[in-house]
Amino acid sequence: MSERPLSYRDAGVDRDAASRAKDRISTLVAATATDDVLSAVGSFGGLFRAPRGLRDGVLVASADGVGTKLKVAMMAGRHDTVGADLVNHCVDDILVEGAKPLFFLDYIGMGRLEEGTVEALVSGFSAACRANECALLGGETAEMPDFYAPGEYDLAGFIVGVVENDERPGSHRVRDGDVLLGLASDGFHTNGYTLLRRLFFERMGLGVDDPYPGLDVSVADVLLRVHRSYRAAVWPLVRQGQVQALAHITGGGIPGNLERVLPDGLGATIDTGTWDVPTAFAVVEREGRVARDEMFRTFNMGVGMVLVARPAVVDGLLSTLADVGETAWVMGAIGPGSGVTLA
Amino acid sequence: MSERPLSYRDAGVDRDAASRAKDRISTLVAATATDDVLSAVGSFGGLFRAPRGLRDGVLVASADGVGTKLKVAMMAGRHDTVGADLVNHCVDDILVEGAKPLFFLDYIGMGRLEEGTVEALVSGFSAACRANECALLGGETAEMPDFYAPGEYDLAGFIVGVVENDERPGSHRVRDGDVLLGLASDGFHTNGYTLLRRLFFERMGLGVDDPYPGLDVSVADVLLRVHRSYRAAVWPLVRQGQVQALAHITGGGIPGNLERVLPDGLGATIDTGTWDVPTAFAVVEREGRVARDEMFRTFNMGVGMVLVARPAVVDGLLSTLADVGETAWVMGAIGPGSGVTLA
Repeated sequence: MSERPLSYRDAGVDRDAASRAKDRISTLVAATATDDVLSAVGSFGGLFRAPRGLRDGVLVASADGVGTKLKVAMMAGRHDTVGADLVNHCVDDILVEGAKPLFFLDYIGMGRLEEGTVEALVSGFSAACRANECALLGGETAEMPDFYAPGEYDLAGFIVGVVENDERPGSHRVRDGDVLLGLASDGFHTNGYTLLRRLFFERMGLGVDDPYPGLDVSVADVLLRVHRSYRAAVWPLVRQGQVQALAHITGGGIPGNLERVLPDGLGATIDTGTWDVPTAFAVVEREGRVARDEMFRTFNMGVGMVLVARPAVVDGLLSTLADVGETAWVMGAIGPGSGVTLA
Repeated sequence: MSERPLSYRDAGVDRDAASRAKDRISTLVAATATDDVLSAVGSFGGLFRAPRGLRDGVLVASADGVGTKLKVAMMAGRHDTVGADLVNHCVDDILVEGAKPLFFLDYIGMGRLEEGTVEALVSGFSAACRANECALLGGETAEMPDFYAPGEYDLAGFIVGVVENDERPGSHRVRDGDVLLGLASDGFHTNGYTLLRRLFFERMGLGVDDPYPGLDVSVADVLLRVHRSYRAAVWPLVRQGQVQALAHITGGGIPGNLERVLPDGLGATIDTGTWDVPTAFAVVEREGRVARDEMFRTFNMGVGMVLVARPAVVDGLLSTLADVGETAWVMGAIGPGSGVTLA
């Protein structure tokens, strides 16, 4: 056994680097502070004024990760986009319950603290929080030597929002004859990356800077497109009672997520001919020889969010959504039956 | 390039296993539900009735990890204790702001979903949530092949609590002459594990089942003792206004954490002769030839929480704390100066 005294730094934890990174990200975090944030960066707990003036308020909370899309970020050396992915994924998850985001917290686990990477990640959190009017209230960056491979990390995000209980959309408000509106996704969002990496980097032997098959941009550009936040476009419509239910299309695809808002006795029929599956997905289907059903269960297939609305408001919704820059279309309907049928 | 069609399962993600694990943990999660939980397991977002009847309520949120203590859990094949560690660490962090926990969410990232491990982790979350009267409101278990080594995982926890703004303890309430009370820790809690692992498993070549030097129990038993929650004992005292400030002794030790509640112009003096540093720590200091200052900056040294109180209430506090099973003692005082002095 060695006689050299052990210090925490020898053992692989650099507290000075941690402290420097903290200073650099403080500015990014402070930029997201809303009027309701009462704490400064670095306090034991983040303080946020409890929402007031509510009739029957409900807090809506969600935890999420980015999944193996992170590996693509590491291969490309770009870390801000996955930061934004995490925030937007969380925002969309609670939007499904009608919630307006209040605050977000992050967890970053990495082997050795890399200041540049942490700063890029936090700049992504910060930009997306600002865009969603959501405070970046706190976070934990854990340096875990011998745990993550050099240059690797994992992320977790946590969001809290608020909604009035009687304004919550959901399966209890879905009726026979309701119309399904699809909202276009921005690429793969955060699902199916294990399959995508296997296909592009192993089977096809592509690098992140190679052109994406059939497109004019690189593999990294396509695979790192940021998960779209639908909050700005959709939350006002939910608030006005124009949307009866929403499905955020994540793991499980359209069938796996839409079935979560179907009440007993009703099913959803989707006409897959109402939109062109984007080239990025078609390439995966063809090159990977992936079955159509597997494609729809694994990927969003160009649809990031599905809204359920009464027929009478559909024209108004489509017009409003187009005005705020969303690509939306009628993709199907609710009727007697069960489950989700792709036609 | 292979011609075999790619499926998500081939690529390393097993959705059926994920679904089975979900069923098994539902019961554990449901057991933590308080009257304010409005959502079922598996919804897009967890729903929790917003706290009401508050004069000027503040939500307090914190994100935490367990750090490399997880490696010890993996070596020992015991996963429930680290689940409880995560909850209790979060609970103690927001207790410092005077907050009573409302709900907790977890993130588990692992390479291949191991049902038994997930169930053990969630049973730890569940038991600790129940003990802290805190709902386990949601979580995310991410299967990330090629990311975590077989049998490895990382955890993140997120907690939200509530406190009345004018009941918040903190540096603004600390005065010259205030007394410092130490509360005994249950071993190493969740800090210093990179050094501990280096010492015991690399330098000394011990295994988790070997006896801990100088103690009658195994290395695993000592290193996996659960981070103590002080909520039950301390929150009522905070609520009554008997505690002016608290420091949760985590990374940085007593000096690094106590200095966070010192107002300008005041310092803290700790008499390290007022308690016996537990054998588990003394062994590390001796065997690792770790400098005393480094020991105090890396480990809690037997003190899990420090309370700042007015002299007039100290006898009452000590008596109350003893009655509820806490080991507490006067360890120092606040006086003119700055920083934390260990005497």
